[in-house]
Amino acid sequence: MARINLHYQKLQAGYLFPEIGKRVCNFAAANPSARVIRLGVGDVVLPLPAPIVDAMKSAAEEMGRKETFRGYGPEQGYDFLREAIAGHYRGQGADVAADEIFVSDGSKCDTANIQEIFAVDNVVAVTDPVYPVYVDTNVMAGRTGSADEAGRYGKLVYLPTTAENGFEPTLPTGHVDLIYLCSPNNPTGAVMSRASLQRWVDYAKSEGAIILFDAAYEAFIREPGLVRSIFEIPGARNVAIEFRSFSKTAGFTGTRCGFAVIPKSLCARDESGASVPLHGLWNRRHTTKFNGVSYPIQRAAAAVFSPEGSKGVQANIDYYMENARIIREGMAKAGYRVYGGVNAPYIWVRLPAGLTSWQFFDRLLAEANVVGTPGSGFGSCGEGYFRLSAFGFRGEIEEAIERIGKKVPAA
Amino acid sequence: MARINLHYQKLQAGYLFPEIGKRVCNFAAANPSARVIRLGVGDVVLPLPAPIVDAMKSAAEEMGRKETFRGYGPEQGYDFLREAIAGHYRGQGADVAADEIFVSDGSKCDTANIQEIFAVDNVVAVTDPVYPVYVDTNVMAGRTGSADEAGRYGKLVYLPTTAENGFEPTLPTGHVDLIYLCSPNNPTGAVMSRASLQRWVDYAKSEGAIILFDAAYEAFIREPGLVRSIFEIPGARNVAIEFRSFSKTAGFTGTRCGFAVIPKSLCARDESGASVPLHGLWNRRHTTKFNGVSYPIQRAAAAVFSPEGSKGVQANIDYYMENARIIREGMAKAGYRVYGGVNAPYIWVRLPAGLTSWQFFDRLLAEANVVGTPGSGFGSCGEGYFRLSAFGFRGEIEEAIERIGKKVPAA
Repeated sequence: MARINLHYQKLQAGYLFPEIGKRVCNFAAANPSARVIRLGVGDVVLPLPAPIVDAMKSAAEEMGRKETFRGYGPEQGYDFLREAIAGHYRGQGADVAADEIFVSDGSKCDTANIQEIFAVDNVVAVTDPVYPVYVDTNVMAGRTGSADEAGRYGKLVYLPTTAENGFEPTLPTGHVDLIYLCSPNNPTGAVMSRASLQRWVDYAKSEGAIILFDAAYEAFIREPGLVRSIFEIPGARNVAIEFRSFSKTAGFTGTRCGFAVIPKSLCARDESGASVPLHGLWNRRHTTKFNGVSYPIQRAAAAVFSPEGSKGVQANIDYYMENARIIREGMAKAGYRVYGGVNAPYIWVRLPAGLTSWQFFDRLLAEANVVGTPGSGFGSCGEGYFRLSAFGFRGEIEEAIERIGKKVPAA
Repeated sequence: MARINLHYQKLQAGYLFPEIGKRVCNFAAANPSARVIRLGVGDVVLPLPAPIVDAMKSAAEEMGRKETFRGYGPEQGYDFLREAIAGHYRGQGADVAADEIFVSDGSKCDTANIQEIFAVDNVVAVTDPVYPVYVDTNVMAGRTGSADEAGRYGKLVYLPTTAENGFEPTLPTGHVDLIYLCSPNNPTGAVMSRASLQRWVDYAKSEGAIILFDAAYEAFIREPGLVRSIFEIPGARNVAIEFRSFSKTAGFTGTRCGFAVIPKSLCARDESGASVPLHGLWNRRHTTKFNGVSYPIQRAAAAVFSPEGSKGVQANIDYYMENARIIREGMAKAGYRVYGGVNAPYIWVRLPAGLTSWQFFDRLLAEANVVGTPGSGFGSCGEGYFRLSAFGFRGEIEEAIERIGKKVPAA
C-alpha cells in the first residue's frame, strides 16, 4: 500500500493568507459599498520597464525563427545572464564568479529546495518572525518534530528578532548546523548590521554551520554602507549561500526569475568527516530536478542590468520607497511605533500594548477598510506587530494612511 | 558540523551525456574536417509556430502596461490554461477536471518532485531501460540502496522492457508501491497497449500502488486506437498520476512548461491506514516549493490549443515523424532491426549480436560521423540497443541515414 510522506501531516494549515482572504471576503459581503485597500500581500503593482519587455519580446521572436531558435539551455542559466549577475556583484564589492551562480525561477523555490542537499538530522535555526517557506520545507523533509500550541515545531531553533534586540537575531546558545537569515528582512524590514553579520559568519565558521542568506530585498537598501551581500563579509565564502530574486527588485513576481550563489569554497561534511563541496551537490540537484529558466525570461532578467533597464527598475524602487516613507511617517504621526520601511519595502508596526495582531487586523478592516498582515502570522514573536507593504499605487497608499490617521489612531 | 545528504553519494556520475560529449569532442579534435551529425540528445530544432510566439509577445506587452500587469499568479496555473488543457483531455476521451491540473515548468521537474509526497520506505518500480530522472531522484531521497557494478540500485524493482517481451513491462512478482511508466516510451519508442495498461491499473488497485504515468510524448502517437492518457483506462483515476509536457509536443524545451494531473479521487495511506487525498498533498508541495509558471509562458502554452497554434504544432510533429520514418526505414534497409519511431520520436535500434552499445557508438562516430545514444546509458537492459532521435533537420537526417547505410550497414 503506497504511503504518504507523514511529515506533511505535521504542517500547520496554510493559515495566514487564506484566513486574511476569508475575513476580507466576509467584510466585503457585509459592506458592499466599502472600498477596501490592500496593503497585505507583498506583491508588486508597477509594470515592467519597457527595456525589459522589449528584451522578452525580442527573445520570443528569436524562438520563432529557425536560425535563432533555442532548445534546452544550460540548467544553471545562460552565460549572458550569469555574467551580468557576476558583474553586478562586483559593483557591490562582493566576490562572486559567474559559474557560482545558479539561475532559477525564483527565490521561494531556491530557499525551499536548498535543504534537500543536507542531511535530515541537521539542526536548523530560523528567526522568529520568519518567512514561512524556510520552516515548512524543513517540516516536509522531516527535520522537525510536531508543532506545539504556539505553532512552534520541535527540534527547530527559533531566534527571536524583536524591538527588544533591535531586530538583530542573537547567536544560539547551543550548536546549530543550518541558519536561515533574511536581510533586509521580511517581515520586519530590518537590515542586519555589518558587525552582526560578521558575528554570524564567525559563529558559522567555528561551528561548521552553513548560513542560508536570503537577500531578496537588497535592492531596497537606501542608506550607504549597509551590507547588500553576505559575501561582503570576510570569511563568508566558506560558510554561506546567498539567494536573490528579480521578483521585488524588478517586478518579476509573475515573470519568475531568481538565483542562488554557492561559492566553490563552501563545504559540508560527509559520514567520514570529509569535506564535500556544496557547489557540486547543488549542481547535481539543480540539473536532476530542474531544467533551466525559459530563454525569453532570462533575456528579460539580463535587461535588468542594462543601463536603460536598470534606470527603469530604479525608478520603480524609488516609487515604492516613497510609498514606504508615506506609510512610515503617516503611521508614526498616527501615534504608532514603526520599524523598517527605510531600507525595505515593509513597515513593521508595533501595536499598542494589549492589542493582538488579529484584533488590530479586524479593527483596521472594519474602521479604515484597510487590509494588512497580522505579525503573528510570521511566528509567535510577531504577536503584537503588524506588517504593511509599500507595494501599491500612490493614491491608494495615501488614502489608506489618511484613513488610518483619522479612524484608527494609536492614541 | 553541517552534514550533506549522504544519499547523493550513492548517485552514479551523470555518465551518459558528458561521456558522449567527451568522445565527440575528442573525435572532432582529431578529425577537424569531419561534419558530425547529432541524433543523440532528444532536443527539438524547429522554431515555435507564429501564433505561439505572438501570444508570448502579447503577454509580454501586457506586463509592460499598468492596466494589464500581472504579479503573483495562482501557483497551480491560470484558469485559462488549465481549462484549455482540460478541454484537450475531453477531446481525447479522458475525464480530467481543470482543478486537477497543476501547471509546472516541465515534466522533468514534475516527475522528479512527485516522489517527495510519498514515504521514504515505499518500494519503487522502474522499467529498464528508463529515463534516469525517475531513478536519480529516488536515490537522492533515500529510497534505494547503493548501486551494484551494473549500475542497479538496491531496493529498486527493475522491470525489463526488451524486444523479448515486446517492450511491455511485466507485472512485478512481489509488492511495489510506486510504479513509473512512460508511454510512448523514452528511449524505446514503444507504446503500451490498452490491455497492458489495464493490467497495470488492476495491479495498482489490488496492491494499493500508485502509477506515475509519463505521457510527455503522447502527441507523437499516429496510429488510431492507442492510449494517449492513463485516464482512458477504467479505474485509473483511483491509482494514477499523469505527467505531460509542452517540450517535445510544441517545441518548448527552452520555453519550459508542463503539467501534472492528480485526480481528486486518488489516495494513499497514512500511518493509521487512513486514506489521504494526494491532490491536497501535492497542492501543499506545489504551493510551498514552487511559485507558478511565468505569465507570458502560460499564454504561449495556451496558444498551443488554439486552432492556429494547434495547426502549427501539428505541422512540426508531422515533420519530426517523417524524420522518424526515414530513420526507421533507412536503418531497416541497412540491415538493422528497428523498434519505435512509429508513434514516438525515438528509434530504438537492436545491434548485431556481440556488439555493445558503446562499441557501436564509437564505430558510428568514426565511420559515419553520426552521434546517437548508447542504449546501455538508460539501464542494463538497454545494452545491445542504440537510440536515434527524430528531432533534427530533414537534410541532416537524410544524410546521416545515407552515411550509415553506406558505411556502417548491419550486415
